[in-house]
Amino acid sequence: MEVFEKWESEIRGYSRMWPTVFTSASNARQVDEAGKSYVDFFAGAGVLNFGHNNERMKRAIIAFLEADGIAHSLDMATTVKRDFLSAFAEKILGPRGMTMRMQFMGPTGSNAVEAALKLARRVTGRQDVVAFTHGFHGMTLGSLALTANDYFRNAAGVPLEHVVRLPFETAPGGGVRALDDYRALLADGSSGLKPPAAFVVETVQAEGGVHVANGEWLRAVQQLARDVDALFVIDEIQVGCGRTGSYFSFDGMDLDPDIVCLAKGIGGFGTPLAMNLVKPEHDARWSPGEHTGTFRGQGLSFVAGREALTYFDDDEFLAQVRAKGETMAGALRTIAQDSGHGFDVRGKGMIQGLDLGDGALAKAVTTACFEAGLLVCPCGTGGRVLKLIPPLTIGDDDLAEGLEILAFAVRATT
Amino acid sequence: MEVFEKWESEIRGYSRMWPTVFTSASNARQVDEAGKSYVDFFAGAGVLNFGHNNERMKRAIIAFLEADGIAHSLDMATTVKRDFLSAFAEKILGPRGMTMRMQFMGPTGSNAVEAALKLARRVTGRQDVVAFTHGFHGMTLGSLALTANDYFRNAAGVPLEHVVRLPFETAPGGGVRALDDYRALLADGSSGLKPPAAFVVETVQAEGGVHVANGEWLRAVQQLARDVDALFVIDEIQVGCGRTGSYFSFDGMDLDPDIVCLAKGIGGFGTPLAMNLVKPEHDARWSPGEHTGTFRGQGLSFVAGREALTYFDDDEFLAQVRAKGETMAGALRTIAQDSGHGFDVRGKGMIQGLDLGDGALAKAVTTACFEAGLLVCPCGTGGRVLKLIPPLTIGDDDLAEGLEILAFAVRATT
Amino acid sequence: MEVFEKWESEIRGYSRMWPTVFTSASNARQVDEAGKSYVDFFAGAGVLNFGHNNERMKRAIIAFLEADGIAHSLDMATTVKRDFLSAFAEKILGPRGMTMRMQFMGPTGSNAVEAALKLARRVTGRQDVVAFTHGFHGMTLGSLALTANDYFRNAAGVPLEHVVRLPFETAPGGGVRALDDYRALLADGSSGLKPPAAFVVETVQAEGGVHVANGEWLRAVQQLARDVDALFVIDEIQVGCGRTGSYFSFDGMDLDPDIVCLAKGIGGFGTPLAMNLVKPEHDARWSPGEHTGTFRGQGLSFVAGREALTYFDDDEFLAQVRAKGETMAGALRTIAQDSGHGFDVRGKGMIQGLDLGDGALAKAVTTACFEAGLLVCPCGTGGRVLKLIPPLTIGDDDLAEGLEILAFAVRATT
Amino acid sequence: MEVFEKWESEIRGYSRMWPTVFTSASNARQVDEAGKSYVDFFAGAGVLNFGHNNERMKRAIIAFLEADGIAHSLDMATTVKRDFLSAFAEKILGPRGMTMRMQFMGPTGSNAVEAALKLARRVTGRQDVVAFTHGFHGMTLGSLALTANDYFRNAAGVPLEHVVRLPFETAPGGGVRALDDYRALLADGSSGLKPPAAFVVETVQAEGGVHVANGEWLRAVQQLARDVDALFVIDEIQVGCGRTGSYFSFDGMDLDPDIVCLAKGIGGFGTPLAMNLVKPEHDARWSPGEHTGTFRGQGLSFVAGREALTYFDDDEFLAQVRAKGETMAGALRTIAQDSGHGFDVRGKGMIQGLDLGDGALAKAVTTACFEAGLLVCPCGTGGRVLKLIPPLTIGDDDLAEGLEILAFAVRATT
Repeated sequence: MEVFEKWESEIRGYSRMWPTVFTSASNARQVDEAGKSYVDFFAGAGVLNFGHNNERMKRAIIAFLEADGIAHSLDMATTVKRDFLSAFAEKILGPRGMTMRMQFMGPTGSNAVEAALKLARRVTGRQDVVAFTHGFHGMTLGSLALTANDYFRNAAGVPLEHVVRLPFETAPGGGVRALDDYRALLADGSSGLKPPAAFVVETVQAEGGVHVANGEWLRAVQQLARDVDALFVIDEIQVGCGRTGSYFSFDGMDLDPDIVCLAKGIGGFGTPLAMNLVKPEHDARWSPGEHTGTFRGQGLSFVAGREALTYFDDDEFLAQVRAKGETMAGALRTIAQDSGHGFDVRGKGMIQGLDLGDGALAKAVTTACFEAGLLVCPCGTGGRVLKLIPPLTIGDDDLAEGLEILAFAVRATT
Repeated sequence: MEVFEKWESEIRGYSRMWPTVFTSASNARQVDEAGKSYVDFFAGAGVLNFGHNNERMKRAIIAFLEADGIAHSLDMATTVKRDFLSAFAEKILGPRGMTMRMQFMGPTGSNAVEAALKLARRVTGRQDVVAFTHGFHGMTLGSLALTANDYFRNAAGVPLEHVVRLPFETAPGGGVRALDDYRALLADGSSGLKPPAAFVVETVQAEGGVHVANGEWLRAVQQLARDVDALFVIDEIQVGCGRTGSYFSFDGMDLDPDIVCLAKGIGGFGTPLAMNLVKPEHDARWSPGEHTGTFRGQGLSFVAGREALTYFDDDEFLAQVRAKGETMAGALRTIAQDSGHGFDVRGKGMIQGLDLGDGALAKAVTTACFEAGLLVCPCGTGGRVLKLIPPLTIGDDDLAEGLEILAFAVRATT
Repeated sequence: MEVFEKWESEIRGYSRMWPTVFTSASNARQVDEAGKSYVDFFAGAGVLNFGHNNERMKRAIIAFLEADGIAHSLDMATTVKRDFLSAFAEKILGPRGMTMRMQFMGPTGSNAVEAALKLARRVTGRQDVVAFTHGFHGMTLGSLALTANDYFRNAAGVPLEHVVRLPFETAPGGGVRALDDYRALLADGSSGLKPPAAFVVETVQAEGGVHVANGEWLRAVQQLARDVDALFVIDEIQVGCGRTGSYFSFDGMDLDPDIVCLAKGIGGFGTPLAMNLVKPEHDARWSPGEHTGTFRGQGLSFVAGREALTYFDDDEFLAQVRAKGETMAGALRTIAQDSGHGFDVRGKGMIQGLDLGDGALAKAVTTACFEAGLLVCPCGTGGRVLKLIPPLTIGDDDLAEGLEILAFAVRATT
Repeated sequence: MEVFEKWESEIRGYSRMWPTVFTSASNARQVDEAGKSYVDFFAGAGVLNFGHNNERMKRAIIAFLEADGIAHSLDMATTVKRDFLSAFAEKILGPRGMTMRMQFMGPTGSNAVEAALKLARRVTGRQDVVAFTHGFHGMTLGSLALTANDYFRNAAGVPLEHVVRLPFETAPGGGVRALDDYRALLADGSSGLKPPAAFVVETVQAEGGVHVANGEWLRAVQQLARDVDALFVIDEIQVGCGRTGSYFSFDGMDLDPDIVCLAKGIGGFGTPLAMNLVKPEHDARWSPGEHTGTFRGQGLSFVAGREALTYFDDDEFLAQVRAKGETMAGALRTIAQDSGHGFDVRGKGMIQGLDLGDGALAKAVTTACFEAGLLVCPCGTGGRVLKLIPPLTIGDDDLAEGLEILAFAVRATT
């Protein structure tokens, strides 16, 4: 570790929580230099939905490399990008009747959100954007203004503006009532509030502590957006691409967002990719090249990302996701019950959270898990919620082993 | 192309300029579906310093994949990252006596700039940052505030604030005098100006139109930063990693920046990577995880990026870069002279610009080049400057062919 | 009127509503050039609590002028200012056990609010200030940011920032619940909200439509301010100086504000004066001359303002105010009842509002009143509320006549 | 003084510099409680151009009061306001061929500037305004953003934005060259600067340290404003109304401002009044009542202000101003020369400054003057410049005595 201590920035975080040097990884396993193998319930912060070194993707990438495929193309047209576009249109958009355009930008989720904000402001001619308490949308100045957590916000060094903050459905004062109150304010010419350009919402707040919104509330948000001529934007970066048991986390909720932000799992293999889905009438408001980014055309990500889409050719894979999610939720409920501490369990599909109510405790459990061979990471305010987001492809054995380690660690720590 | 027209966002740009579908690429050549081969004087906007599908890097990446190396690790410690850190410290920092820490963030140049801004504001407790006319620093809200071009700024939809704009050395009213005027303003308690957190400068403005600052002016900027207790930040994203004939564009200039922003070429192969070099006393001001980003630990980029560093084991490679740069500059001067239009030629090493003084003309030349088999792209205000940034590894034949096509295209168009 | 049409700015407002040229005025009467006399239920927008050309004040001013008293002194010490300070301390502050310091600034209410904002931000080191829907606090950029009405805000031409808007007690979503929701947000480190520097509230929103807060809610606002270490500021500009039946509108409510903003009635005669009362521990944070203003030391206003304080030597005057207020409220209730339209009547002491629910109707009634010899002015969103604020010194006959005219005008119009 | 120390805010300033209690004043004399008489070279910070208790104005005000004239009328039409409008149109605007509209707002200079900013932003649809180093324009948030002095700016507690700062003509880096540099930046689509809404300039910076701009530079500012479609605004608040030897300080300079801000001397007697002159085509952009203010229609100020205009019926008064200005300048030059310290003397008409180069020294001279019976006040950065702005009506004896005291005080102190 001394190389890291000597040369890497003090800002490093995960390497402090998990103080070992990893050397290889496969599906839901990471192995360190000492040969110790860890079950991975973190999956690269939700990137590796299809596991480390997914064999099908790996083979496809190597074949692509050997054929001198174009690894980097900005937004030039390439065959590999065309294949991805076609596959996404055919497998994901088509069956849902979605006609949205695919926009690529810098390959991070933060970039996707920044591009969505620019477009929403362009379309509406307005500046303020509604975001929700406990929301997480990125680290660059525009997306950071939407992110709620103080720890991240305090690093900005400048005021974070043009955001109206409403309570998330499950937060104190939240729910439809808060939306109604805000609607009343907007209807009032003496409220001192201007109508917003967009409502940006996560269906499941992942970093924010695994808070799951229900369809009714999300529809109320969408309806409010429609009523005040604002765009309805779903930040699907962490919980899209199958994580919740459907391809989009909002599938089946009767929602029709104007923009959907995707990143993390969309590139399949862990190589960067971000993509916004944008309704054509809004997309037409872009002029060419107005929001660019060097690393837009990532060939390896297109190859692996296209491979990832084959998991959704039928419902079998997603049925397994839902089943494993049930297994995870059940195990967590048992842990919570056994603890006698009334810990809260929340989640949907294969994102499940165990709210220990206390960051120090969660950190201790995290450490105990690490020592016992499980990578699991806290989230939420003060880091009080253990968030379980294993690869969707995790084997039943590894899943069971990981849950057992977690149960043991909670028992040992509380 | 119809897939792109139907499904991709209207924001696409390069695919309009170069309306063909590329399928493979090798070193300084891109080939389209029709089998037509193009000399590449664009190199992925300066990413591909070591060419498309650099053989050594490709082999290293495939080996890494086959060994189930860790492709995505956030900021966990991995062997592949350690190797990169060590190599960079040994080959680049050590010989220069630099003790800077390496910080990884979201893998785009814009992220590197955003992180530098946060840190400069933290260190100084100030908000305003000095940037220069014609500067380009990214597309997210913090970096976009530094970017000068109106076309990009107008897409923000909100005010871009906390930036003081000074003329770049070569701009009207620029030079040391403008720095002196600003220094006088800062020294004056009734100027209405607060001292800045940082001066962020490119030694060569690439997107801005290939404007080359000389050492004297850069040292004056650095001295002014020192005198007003601001940080001196070099945005080395497009012209670092050997582009100008030395590893850093500022090598040999007696400069000692507080932060250096790197991206593009640092990952070697075209896969995303960004890295800031930060003086330890500033870096110590970060708390763990204050500026995060999902795609921080890019294994493939570390593998290729480390391979790239071997080009700098001795001066042979850079000597070739300088020689090719001379060839390019000479050819451009001839073109300019033959044209009889007094076109300006500017550049350093293997970034060279031909200022045609008119965006429409530059566009026409670009199209003529494309048709004749050369990818070259305009930059600068209104797109009036043809910027030549071929892979540093381009063969002499390809370089010659490209320059001949360019000469032909200029003749045919003007 | 042609002189006004030819030479005065198009921004003129009252002269359009009341298209005649006034030539003299006495107590609650204004007379125009044609000799027509109007009962004045407007009192210079609440300035003339003691009537036009109050005889006692007039005599005192003339004596002061004849003695070459100092009419303009900035913040030099003058005998006339000392007399005012002493009288205010003795008659107003002393009996209430208040030890607040008196601060003079530019002689407008807007200036008082701007100074209060500066001090609250200084004391707390925070930027955001809580203001309420329908609040009115002035027209300069700092106070305008607090003002809620869109018509005024839209004239700013720049974003109005650093204000958090909460619903006033009587607004939709208002009341203690909204305060509790906001308290919960502030307590949540992932709410994205920073604690405010101050809560600025009117006990009765005058311009905003005659909305009267009750003591319980105001105490809850004060308590919330205390709990989050923010200042509690009462903007008493329109409803202080006896208007509501006590000297301060908040007398007897068990409130202890950090800053009280006064203007309008404080100068007695209609000549400009503004004054903030500031708790000494906050006041100590000012450095000399940090918030200046040319027209601070207004001798004539000190003379008349001191004279005005004699009205509060005992409770007789205020008892009359309360009695006349009852008369006004009773008459308005009768008007509302007779109309059969269920108009709302709101108010406290001698500020009473008749909410006609419709701006066009209110304008028509205003015009009918004017023609019949009564000056009364609409307020609130879209101007739907007739606000009755006659001089507190109005004679019973004039009060009765004015109320009769109003009743007639409502009958004639609805 | 103890009443002030006990009850008045710590922010008081002048009463610290001149620690006595004044009781009466006449023309250029102030008398304190002890009967000591002071020559007044300060004139209420430039308000009292026509002296304390100007006899003609006093008689007119008393007659107006006795006749129950309307002291306070907001923007209702009154006979006294009409008389003022007519007289100003006839005596000032007409002879100059000016067709500007007169706009009244809150009666402070700061309000005049705030209104001018709103209108300039409305007319142009732009936000940024150009202001100059050492400029002083007021204390409310909008005008304060234009004010340059750090001491005042630091009290704001929020960022002061939407202002572009250029060096004043006489500041380091100032002059026409700085305007040309700025023009070049605006012409450059990659400068990162947007065109401004207005240029706001003082012809003589009074608070800023008595810096006098010449006509050539002012015309260059105006021309630049014209060329970039911005408004040209002259802040004439301290040096208008005859101060410089002509009614407007810019008379005879071939200037044609879009807006002229007036306050201080316009009301004649020291009672508040502010007025903007606005070109009709801009004025037409106001909607009624968009920028209001309680204390708009100040009857006493209209009476005295109209009386003040009679001083400009012919050139005799102004000829005296210019002659006295020469006397002042000559005396200051002698003082500077005798001191042997090379003090700078600057000014125009009856605003003259002696730049002592050091605030502590200026303060010592101010104190010595006070003790010897002269009120003179420092200005400029750190208070290093003694600013002489006696009433324009000062008698030759008082002027001579004041200058002698000043000479003595400088000798005694340096």
